[in-house]
Amino acid sequence: MKNKHIIFLAIVVLCVFSCKQKQENPPIQKDPLPSFNDVQSKANIMAFVQSVTDSTSSNYVKPIDRIACFDNDGTLWAEQPLPSQLFFVFDKVREMARSNPKYATESPYKQVVENNLEELLKQDKDKLVAMIGEVDSLFYPNYKETVNSWIDTVQHPVLNRPYASTVYQPMIELLDYLRANQFTVYVVSGGGVAFMRAWQPVIYGIPENNIIGSTFKTEAVQKNDSIAVVPTSQFDFYDDHMGKVINIQKTIGKKPIMVVGNSDGDLEMMEYAFTNNPHPTFMLYVNHTDGEREFLYDEKTIAGKLVKGKEVAKKNGWTIIDMRNDWKTVFPN
Amino acid sequence: MKNKHIIFLAIVVLCVFSCKQKQENPPIQKDPLPSFNDVQSKANIMAFVQSVTDSTSSNYVKPIDRIACFDNDGTLWAEQPLPSQLFFVFDKVREMARSNPKYATESPYKQVVENNLEELLKQDKDKLVAMIGEVDSLFYPNYKETVNSWIDTVQHPVLNRPYASTVYQPMIELLDYLRANQFTVYVVSGGGVAFMRAWQPVIYGIPENNIIGSTFKTEAVQKNDSIAVVPTSQFDFYDDHMGKVINIQKTIGKKPIMVVGNSDGDLEMMEYAFTNNPHPTFMLYVNHTDGEREFLYDEKTIAGKLVKGKEVAKKNGWTIIDMRNDWKTVFPN
Repeated sequence: MKNKHIIFLAIVVLCVFSCKQKQENPPIQKDPLPSFNDVQSKANIMAFVQSVTDSTSSNYVKPIDRIACFDNDGTLWAEQPLPSQLFFVFDKVREMARSNPKYATESPYKQVVENNLEELLKQDKDKLVAMIGEVDSLFYPNYKETVNSWIDTVQHPVLNRPYASTVYQPMIELLDYLRANQFTVYVVSGGGVAFMRAWQPVIYGIPENNIIGSTFKTEAVQKNDSIAVVPTSQFDFYDDHMGKVINIQKTIGKKPIMVVGNSDGDLEMMEYAFTNNPHPTFMLYVNHTDGEREFLYDEKTIAGKLVKGKEVAKKNGWTIIDMRNDWKTVFPN
Repeated sequence: MKNKHIIFLAIVVLCVFSCKQKQENPPIQKDPLPSFNDVQSKANIMAFVQSVTDSTSSNYVKPIDRIACFDNDGTLWAEQPLPSQLFFVFDKVREMARSNPKYATESPYKQVVENNLEELLKQDKDKLVAMIGEVDSLFYPNYKETVNSWIDTVQHPVLNRPYASTVYQPMIELLDYLRANQFTVYVVSGGGVAFMRAWQPVIYGIPENNIIGSTFKTEAVQKNDSIAVVPTSQFDFYDDHMGKVINIQKTIGKKPIMVVGNSDGDLEMMEYAFTNNPHPTFMLYVNHTDGEREFLYDEKTIAGKLVKGKEVAKKNGWTIIDMRNDWKTVFPN
């Protein structure tokens, strides 16, 4: 009888215990940022995320206000020797020149076909921008497929991997970490919005509606009861420097609590988010210090100059990632 | 002994059963749209939501693509005898006129102060629009508080309730139902975006970044390291008719699968979403048939004309809510 009672009790306890365990689902304490070394930048990121998600903390921010804005070129993927969208445009111009003499003889297309970067950069800036819009609009409505096929297969000229694999592994982990903590992540980049919306939803997991970039004008075309929005090559808005601030206010409508960038072009959106923000903020710069695994640049570069931004960051105590020292891995395997 | 065994077995079964129950958390089959009568429009809405969220259905749509766009005036809240933002502007103009003679003597402010609607509507349209922008910018930076205090306390001239309570209860339930089914809900309205962003996050639970509307130009102003975005009274973009299509493409970057509106001004975004959409779609019109509880209008009205939209809806088999017949309740208690 006594044994029976003990077995009975044991089964009940076991059952209740297993029931309780299943209910609670204790989280596995996995490192959310395994590609970061154990450095100050990692500690700062995690301390910020922990404090704004802790409902008992005075720094607590409701999920609806957890907005993070990321620059793209040089922040989420490589931007040297030139931003990758330009290599895409150059490749497509060369393709177009094979069947249309206009693109082989007129500037600035001619300089692209001749691969004369020095002469190309001397061309009228508006014409250079219009060339990007021309490619965007000429490949409509198959633009998205065209971009994705290019990005998945064409090799980066220096990094020897497809452009799709020139994204920074530690930043992919940071995006996942923020989303797991109910942040809404936006890209706010000088790059073309159509180009970015083609590949970033899959590669970053960021949906089209959270991607803000430079724009060309569009035209709404109605045929019977069907309406299409068609891209044009007419430039609309450059989403860099103060343009990023204007677009954040226009599209997001409130200040982000976190901004991540790598250049002076990101400084204004950081200053905008940092000052008069009703919530705690976290500003994060990526500093390109790794000439071996990636590129070493800040002052002297066509893309991604970081001079004033570093000064302001130091003055304000913002966090700076030292790529060489802070990242265990740069690119995904 | 036999009894003991039975009790033992009963307890184990009970424990396992209660454990199972807690694990599974069986959803309580609550009516998600209690303010709708059991009518066709309700059945259509629920059938659509069930089919796009059923991963075994060929109509399944991934959460990332479950975008729903709602018009505001006449769709989510009342818009008669005039859209409520205009009553807000009129009240503020009268307030301003007390301390600044400009607003008492110059058109179209004069006509507002004199409460002469007939003369007011004859004024230059650009000047009428600029008046809205003037109020938006003059109340900066306390605009949000000003709007909320007005909306919560001032009574609607016909409905005898504060403007905050002129929202449609069945539509509030629809917003909740969609969000519970992982839809991302946007407002896409001809109303001013600053006005809507002031109160909709609380009243609709729609965050600022999902509110698209008509815009006035902004100016980014830098003082030392602090940046503010300041509204101006200069008109920027009218988010109605084809403007809604352009803005959806620009801000959301892909076609919504569901569009809800009440007027011809919503027809273009419906046609845009309905045609060449890679996903199943659902277009829904609210028809103002209830002269007793709300307003009876479609053809002859300043705001919310619905003629062509109804024709196209019938031709395409879109769903039309007959407010008088379909809604058990119109406004929240």
